Amino acid sequence: MENLTVGQYNLVYNAFSFGFATLAAATIFFWLGRSQVDTKFKTALTITGLVTAIAAYHYFRIFESWTASYAFIDGTLQATGVPFNDAYRYVDWLLTVPLLLIELILVMGLSRSETISRATRLGLLAALMVALGYPGEVAASGGGRWIWGLLSMIPFLWIVYELFVGLSKSISNQPESARGLITLARNVTVASWAFYPVVYFAGAIGLGGAGSEVIIQVGYTIADIVAKAGFGVLIFLIAVRKSEAMANGSDKVVPAE
Amino acid sequence: MENLTVGQYNLVYNAFSFGFATLAAATIFFWLGRSQVDTKFKTALTITGLVTAIAAYHYFRIFESWTASYAFIDGTLQATGVPFNDAYRYVDWLLTVPLLLIELILVMGLSRSETISRATRLGLLAALMVALGYPGEVAASGGGRWIWGLLSMIPFLWIVYELFVGLSKSISNQPESARGLITLARNVTVASWAFYPVVYFAGAIGLGGAGSEVIIQVGYTIADIVAKAGFGVLIFLIAVRKSEAMANGSDKVVPAE
Repeated sequence: MENLTVGQYNLVYNAFSFGFATLAAATIFFWLGRSQVDTKFKTALTITGLVTAIAAYHYFRIFESWTASYAFIDGTLQATGVPFNDAYRYVDWLLTVPLLLIELILVMGLSRSETISRATRLGLLAALMVALGYPGEVAASGGGRWIWGLLSMIPFLWIVYELFVGLSKSISNQPESARGLITLARNVTVASWAFYPVVYFAGAIGLGGAGSEVIIQVGYTIADIVAKAGFGVLIFLIAVRKSEAMANGSDKVVPAE
Repeated sequence: MENLTVGQYNLVYNAFSFGFATLAAATIFFWLGRSQVDTKFKTALTITGLVTAIAAYHYFRIFESWTASYAFIDGTLQATGVPFNDAYRYVDWLLTVPLLLIELILVMGLSRSETISRATRLGLLAALMVALGYPGEVAASGGGRWIWGLLSMIPFLWIVYELFVGLSKSISNQPESARGLITLARNVTVASWAFYPVVYFAGAIGLGGAGSEVIIQVGYTIADIVAKAGFGVLIFLIAVRKSEAMANGSDKVVPAE
């Protein structure tokens, strides 16, 4: 373990606790919100809440692992020898990142066949992206981090292509009141996800040591909150607007199935 | 306990945590999904969620048992002398495996008498299959594992026969929109269950030591996730499609009770 100052240790400690609280609160918001939307969008909100629930669980575990890794012995902060388990992040992402794309597809209310094909393809690409990133995260050398990181960028860029080119026609078919929000949700996905490789490669450009560890942990935490809780609020708003459009008949831009 | 490397220990540790998170998340998904299906299928989803809830509980216990069996002492991984309790799996399966077959029968919406007779027979066979497997799992010799394992295969093959031959007419009576999914759910049951004896007998063909322990623990975890959470998603989709078919009158292939 790195030798951290008390200030660095506490910054990460507080970031993890903040992450847990935000994601757990967001979960309840999304699940309670299910009763406010049309049946068609309930599954999207169920999954939105599952993403933040799974992430909250992992932040709780990460927090426990962090506090087990260090102890105040005789008033000074010392590593206990218990390794900090960073792998929780990847275990979390393996589940939540495919689900994030699936919730975006579900809230769009596409035809059954398009929903299945797009959700399957995007879900598999997302899982592949996370799986390719992990060997680089635990690589001993910066070189390993570069190689796996760049491999992981291939499915990432494919997802970006799917979201911007593949989905553009479907987005233009959305009811007008929700179109802007769906475009925003798509853009938030790409922008917040682009933050992860920045943090990831910060570990490869020689920013070693305690400062790098703090940047990685706090950076990933902020990115997780934006990509899961922030994105989820957009999904909730889209579901509410589309439910309203269905109720007053202004959703007819969407071709009937 | 086996002498594990830190990497092996962490792989199993992360697999157990992943199993807990996935099964707990799946539980909530199924229970929230109850509000989206016809009254006739609510019990099927209640039980689908019970299966993953019971499994999540046992993964939590297995995880705790795993972390109690090893400790980092002076920075190195050492067995603590507390035995790892593998029996949690069998306690879990004794409850969940009969319930898995019952949820498949329930979502098919058969006549009351057929539901009772098939659910009882399949449930008892499943419990017998698990009960016969346990003495082999804890047997000191590979020979004991073979004998009990092969005995356990008898109810397993009977279940396969019931699912493929006994249920075939009932499956062909399902509404068209759900028939493909029910066939898939039946096939996933058999395919994912067939994975358990592979892991089980891997312990009998002399694959001893730490590597074998890791294969068994990670292998069972993957099989549990597919057979319980993955299978449950199919049950949910079947319940949704059949509820839609009931609402729009296209379920009339099924003879009225």
